[in-house]
Amino acid sequence: MSTTRPPRALTTREQFAALDAADPLAPLRQLFDLPPEVLYLDGNSLGPLPKATANRVQQAVRDEWGRGLITSWNHAGWIDLPRRLGDKLARLVGAAPGELVVADSTSVNLFKVLSAALALQREAPQRRVIISERSNFPTDLYIAQTLAASRGLELRLLSAEQIPAALDETVAVLMLTHVNYRTGAMHDMAALTQAAHAAGALTIWDLCHSAGAVPVELNASGADFAIGCGYKYLNGGPGAPAFVWVHARHAARFEQPLAGWMGHAAPFQFDPTYRPAPGITRALCGTPPVLSMVALECGLDTVLAAEPLGGLRALREKSLALTRCFADLVDARCAPHGISVISPRADVQRGSQVCLTRADGGYAIVQALIARGVIGDFRGGEPGVPDILRFGFTPLTLRYVDVFDAVEHLVQVMDHEEWRAPRFNQRQAVT
Amino acid sequence: MSTTRPPRALTTREQFAALDAADPLAPLRQLFDLPPEVLYLDGNSLGPLPKATANRVQQAVRDEWGRGLITSWNHAGWIDLPRRLGDKLARLVGAAPGELVVADSTSVNLFKVLSAALALQREAPQRRVIISERSNFPTDLYIAQTLAASRGLELRLLSAEQIPAALDETVAVLMLTHVNYRTGAMHDMAALTQAAHAAGALTIWDLCHSAGAVPVELNASGADFAIGCGYKYLNGGPGAPAFVWVHARHAARFEQPLAGWMGHAAPFQFDPTYRPAPGITRALCGTPPVLSMVALECGLDTVLAAEPLGGLRALREKSLALTRCFADLVDARCAPHGISVISPRADVQRGSQVCLTRADGGYAIVQALIARGVIGDFRGGEPGVPDILRFGFTPLTLRYVDVFDAVEHLVQVMDHEEWRAPRFNQRQAVT
Repeated sequence: MSTTRPPRALTTREQFAALDAADPLAPLRQLFDLPPEVLYLDGNSLGPLPKATANRVQQAVRDEWGRGLITSWNHAGWIDLPRRLGDKLARLVGAAPGELVVADSTSVNLFKVLSAALALQREAPQRRVIISERSNFPTDLYIAQTLAASRGLELRLLSAEQIPAALDETVAVLMLTHVNYRTGAMHDMAALTQAAHAAGALTIWDLCHSAGAVPVELNASGADFAIGCGYKYLNGGPGAPAFVWVHARHAARFEQPLAGWMGHAAPFQFDPTYRPAPGITRALCGTPPVLSMVALECGLDTVLAAEPLGGLRALREKSLALTRCFADLVDARCAPHGISVISPRADVQRGSQVCLTRADGGYAIVQALIARGVIGDFRGGEPGVPDILRFGFTPLTLRYVDVFDAVEHLVQVMDHEEWRAPRFNQRQAVT
Repeated sequence: MSTTRPPRALTTREQFAALDAADPLAPLRQLFDLPPEVLYLDGNSLGPLPKATANRVQQAVRDEWGRGLITSWNHAGWIDLPRRLGDKLARLVGAAPGELVVADSTSVNLFKVLSAALALQREAPQRRVIISERSNFPTDLYIAQTLAASRGLELRLLSAEQIPAALDETVAVLMLTHVNYRTGAMHDMAALTQAAHAAGALTIWDLCHSAGAVPVELNASGADFAIGCGYKYLNGGPGAPAFVWVHARHAARFEQPLAGWMGHAAPFQFDPTYRPAPGITRALCGTPPVLSMVALECGLDTVLAAEPLGGLRALREKSLALTRCFADLVDARCAPHGISVISPRADVQRGSQVCLTRADGGYAIVQALIARGVIGDFRGGEPGVPDILRFGFTPLTLRYVDVFDAVEHLVQVMDHEEWRAPRFNQRQAVT
């Protein structure tokens, strides 16, 4: 995957511009409506606006809702959105049509699949442990903690290195986020799934920081369940609906507790008794938020637009090149300012983001960059866990010159001590 | 509430037009973008499009997302949407600010509050029964069935008449939909809540067919929990997010299993341990679908626009007058065609809809009306439960002449036997 590694030690903006000129994916940037004054390195929190979205949402509001009213559930295909979007998304994560649906939030979907996985382990009562990573995204841990507590199970939080040895006959489920939200470190999904299965455990993969950014092979890796959000690399818009996938070997028998009418075998028969729909449709619960769904479809289409250009493998090549260039340039230019790269340097261990750290001032540095129009984000540390300056590299929209310019801004912020201004040191909530 | 009862036996369109001319709520219709060719009597399934919504959603897409990108979580107030919309909605259901949030779907919210109610009954293990109404909306029954089965509890489905006598020391929760989705029959929330409490049971009220249509007094009635959707009388758009309310006496101690990060006391501290937020905020789970949320806010604003004109009490007066006129006119003109009214005739027992029935042909009659631009819907029966032709009367948009015209169309459909055309007898899924 890293055969087209660009030459190291690029140091001039002209060298980066030359990479853009040769980039076959460069035209994809035209699919987006990007503010000209912004250098956006936070697509890993909220993907940018696709050009098609505004008109598509307008159409859904004015024509489908305003004119079609209730009839649009059939005539505009609203009722099929969870499955139609699911089939599109399946192409991006190595799943087959009919295996994945779009619904609810990541947290809600995790509750469904963790409940389903535990139900599948019902015959193995000695399996009382759910394993996850201590640095997993908190909402995943909260859902698992609460579910484990209600069942008298143990949620065991480990470091990535401790996980393989911990997979034993007491483990029911291994629940991991594929690419770590803080560090950008990426797990080997196939190897960990195989290890979990060898120990008799089931696996749940959170793809929030993977879907649309790195190639994911759910079926090839043999994973059991997967979930993820639509608003990061899938460009679905703020709080876009999430997705849920179940491997075909479980599809006929998995049970999930959020047994709403959209997961019923015949929702419009208004049968008073729940009868789950065949397959993944039973992972649906309530009525889907149509306006957010149609926006998500436009986001999915931006990633699918890369398919004729090599798809996610080509996007991944570019993403790795962008993150590698960024890390190398930070090494070369920011080390004197005490800034270091803490994302993995090995391509196979790195998602589509690069995280930096500094002993102090991280929050203010990110704020000073935002004031310059360079948008990344900050994730505070704690004893033993460093502060993180997080920069996402969305290969659909970013240019190599953006990498150069971002580092140039960072150097300026440090050289001129801009980050020491009091206004950059007043924290407020950010996502 | 029915002091301004209009004279019975209105028979001419002029008489209905005179009621419109005297209607102080008539200007509210201008808040909506209604297709001129349609007479929409299905606002109880999907409320019509408010005029403000298209521009507001465009602003959220183009400016807040497109320009503001991730910073809009703070700068555009996205992070506050669940609470801000909750406070607006609280005014419509007799709740106080800070008691209600907008989130997820009705089904998901029912799962939260039913779980929470059962947790509050933990000290009373002899309470093993959840009571509901056999004709409750199916998704409510599915959620309750699945939860009851997982806890070894009994879901006991009764007729409305059987409920009071069934409230005894074995009952944990009484879970009802305030206005029945099929018949439009309305429960006495205060009386049933009082009866449930006298028996030591907690109450959950589904307000899907009440919120925005009839005055609801959650606090005054002493209810424990309430949920409901945003897309019917609240005009929030297809699949608009739902809401959840918990009485203040439970707010400090209720627990719900969908413990996602938006319900954490400090979500942006990324604390690995779940610590529920104070009060109703802990009912939040994942990241909210912002585009669907901003559309819902426009819908709420249409109902709040009635406040200077008398608010829900005035809307209710008009709704009762509309439904009464419709029922009376159907009696007068359609009885010879075998069509009868099965919604309650007593005002205090009737929501904002009127349901008709006929021994056969109900589906085709509704289809023939739709072909004429009169949109209602059909809910099929079963042995012992009649087919229903359902017509919702949204007092914000409907005129008295619409009542006259709807009945006139129905008479034409029957007089000319239009409904016997084969094309009106091919069923497809409708919501």
